[in-house]
Amino acid sequence: MNTTYNRIAGTGLERLAALSDGLFAIAMTLIVLEIHVPSRHAIGSEKALWSALVALTPRIVTYLMSFLTLGIFWVGQQTQLNQFARTDRHLAWIHLAFLAAVATMPFSTGLLAEFTTFRTALLVYWVNVFFLGGILYASWVYAERAGLLKESASREVSAAIKRRILVAQTLYAIGAALCPINTYWSIGFIVLVQLNYAVAPRIPGLARLTS
Amino acid sequence: MNTTYNRIAGTGLERLAALSDGLFAIAMTLIVLEIHVPSRHAIGSEKALWSALVALTPRIVTYLMSFLTLGIFWVGQQTQLNQFARTDRHLAWIHLAFLAAVATMPFSTGLLAEFTTFRTALLVYWVNVFFLGGILYASWVYAERAGLLKESASREVSAAIKRRILVAQTLYAIGAALCPINTYWSIGFIVLVQLNYAVAPRIPGLARLTS
Amino acid sequence: MNTTYNRIAGTGLERLAALSDGLFAIAMTLIVLEIHVPSRHAIGSEKALWSALVALTPRIVTYLMSFLTLGIFWVGQQTQLNQFARTDRHLAWIHLAFLAAVATMPFSTGLLAEFTTFRTALLVYWVNVFFLGGILYASWVYAERAGLLKESASREVSAAIKRRILVAQTLYAIGAALCPINTYWSIGFIVLVQLNYAVAPRIPGLARLTS
Amino acid sequence: MNTTYNRIAGTGLERLAALSDGLFAIAMTLIVLEIHVPSRHAIGSEKALWSALVALTPRIVTYLMSFLTLGIFWVGQQTQLNQFARTDRHLAWIHLAFLAAVATMPFSTGLLAEFTTFRTALLVYWVNVFFLGGILYASWVYAERAGLLKESASREVSAAIKRRILVAQTLYAIGAALCPINTYWSIGFIVLVQLNYAVAPRIPGLARLTS
Repeated sequence: MNTTYNRIAGTGLERLAALSDGLFAIAMTLIVLEIHVPSRHAIGSEKALWSALVALTPRIVTYLMSFLTLGIFWVGQQTQLNQFARTDRHLAWIHLAFLAAVATMPFSTGLLAEFTTFRTALLVYWVNVFFLGGILYASWVYAERAGLLKESASREVSAAIKRRILVAQTLYAIGAALCPINTYWSIGFIVLVQLNYAVAPRIPGLARLTS
Repeated sequence: MNTTYNRIAGTGLERLAALSDGLFAIAMTLIVLEIHVPSRHAIGSEKALWSALVALTPRIVTYLMSFLTLGIFWVGQQTQLNQFARTDRHLAWIHLAFLAAVATMPFSTGLLAEFTTFRTALLVYWVNVFFLGGILYASWVYAERAGLLKESASREVSAAIKRRILVAQTLYAIGAALCPINTYWSIGFIVLVQLNYAVAPRIPGLARLTS
Repeated sequence: MNTTYNRIAGTGLERLAALSDGLFAIAMTLIVLEIHVPSRHAIGSEKALWSALVALTPRIVTYLMSFLTLGIFWVGQQTQLNQFARTDRHLAWIHLAFLAAVATMPFSTGLLAEFTTFRTALLVYWVNVFFLGGILYASWVYAERAGLLKESASREVSAAIKRRILVAQTLYAIGAALCPINTYWSIGFIVLVQLNYAVAPRIPGLARLTS
Repeated sequence: MNTTYNRIAGTGLERLAALSDGLFAIAMTLIVLEIHVPSRHAIGSEKALWSALVALTPRIVTYLMSFLTLGIFWVGQQTQLNQFARTDRHLAWIHLAFLAAVATMPFSTGLLAEFTTFRTALLVYWVNVFFLGGILYASWVYAERAGLLKESASREVSAAIKRRILVAQTLYAIGAALCPINTYWSIGFIVLVQLNYAVAPRIPGLARLTS
């Protein structure tokens, strides 16, 4: 009976991963749709097309920021799923809540692309990222308490995963807090933080915080 | 020959799961697209943007309700697939019919988001949910009769799965029946039922009904 | 060296299946997007909404027909993939061509939903279905000649798979040939053929033709 | 500890493949959406519909070219992933960057479909393809240096993979360089190169360059 249960739970973990991969793939593709192809009727020359493409820069930057965000959280969720021995109903629903926040990223991205200079848009974006981090933190805490982790998931691993989320969320909050000065400062700061997570986790002190 | 057949059928079960995960992932992402980013031209101040976002509340509630619906039925289908030892043509087509109903959720959600106060929109939404439950019920009954269940799927499991669908569908029907009073009552009732399934299945009496 | 090659090829088969499942899932969801939610501004009463939904009937029928088409070809491709021991470059590209035809189904479906009474739209739809069947036939013939089938794939299996495609394509062609009379005859005939494949393959004589 | 790490890394490779398959599947389907169904209101006869479909030819060619592009890079990425024994953070991010370039293909395709005769549109398209090839090249070089390849990945395999990318990118660059003459020459040349990769890698000399 126990063996059966574990097998069922294990399969559930695989399907949770499959659903997540699918949802991330779609969100990563949909955010590009906010970069609209310029209308043919308004453009009569190569130069005009070039100007129209240059005018898309804020949207392209927003796209790259959101792709980095989704990439970071995809890696983060994957790291957790790899540490789970099995799942239960509650953990599945925590991850469905996480995916609900992933699915709203195209909206937040579109809002920020349309209203780049508006603090409200930036705060909505930040709230979305905050939910992503918060739910992922809750996922780990719950899985640890409910005994769903693999035996190989040591205390050090657990501490590292929790610290990573806390530090990243602190940095995102600092980025968001810069928006009264200027939303571009916020966006620039957040992109730098994300690039650090994605590209350069070798800086001493920072390296420890990334898994 | 028999061994070969089982292996083929087994692979079919995996691919049915993969197709389902993909389709659920897309439906879960597309329902967000009904939350349109406000148009840049109509909005000149932070306050106006804030008002425009507040005006999106019905759509956000509809989105959350549909995400919960899709999550509940994803968990429900997964529970069944985990109990199947193999599949056959008929079971595959029952699940394709189920997926056809999943694929129409973005339409029903969009309709309800656009016509929140219309009983017709709520009934269309309920019919969609009714199909989801009905087909899933048919799937289990067929799989049981055709001997496609794992040996570990006991009578108790079978009774629990069928009871869960019947109780949930009864609750959804009660929710829909409230619409002559007011569609907001219906939506509120359905969201409460769904939150119970997703978050709090520990209430005595209700706990038994959820798998 | 040979062992390595087989392992690589095997993984390729899995990924081909994963790509196909993803693409089918998206196509199955996108065809629903042709059923547009009526515009809020034009509709002032429950009755008007009801009429607007009834007016969507041709689109709903087209959606169901396309879902059946995609379901049939998904089952058909799956049956083949299950019979392959491994894949090679050529087989992969044959299936990519198949997927290119799957990806155009939302276009063909949208065209037929918009121009239901136009023979041209019906012929485009039929050409799309013809490509699906033709490429799937080519896939099997190539795999057989290149020795990519499992040993368990007997001559009978091979004959049944080829016959099934030929019979189905003949029936589709008959359906398309009815369009000079009336496109509704064509659509009705094709839907009947498809329902037979999906629901009722127990009719003697027809049963043998479906896998 | 080492065993655990390898298991985690191995799972990561599977999920990277799943994310990639999902993203390719979506990109392959979204590029079709640039082929818009003609508007019902503007068309009154079969002949007018036929003309409207003929007028879609540039978009259909663009679609086929992009599908070929995506197919070629899907096969290319798959070939690499099959040669990896495991992944690490850096390799995962290289492939996320690759996927970011895949996700922009619908935009580049839409731009070229809308501005077929504009050199700027063709250069944007080429830059996108150049990123795809460049990142895939970087992926292999990094994996080789970091010791992430399977033992079965011989020097010959490595040389072949790198040569394939370099030759293909050279041919794409030649195609792009033809655009001052005429963008149709560029598109025609690129389609021919792609068809060679997809269909006819038996031409002596060329066969060696394709994996």
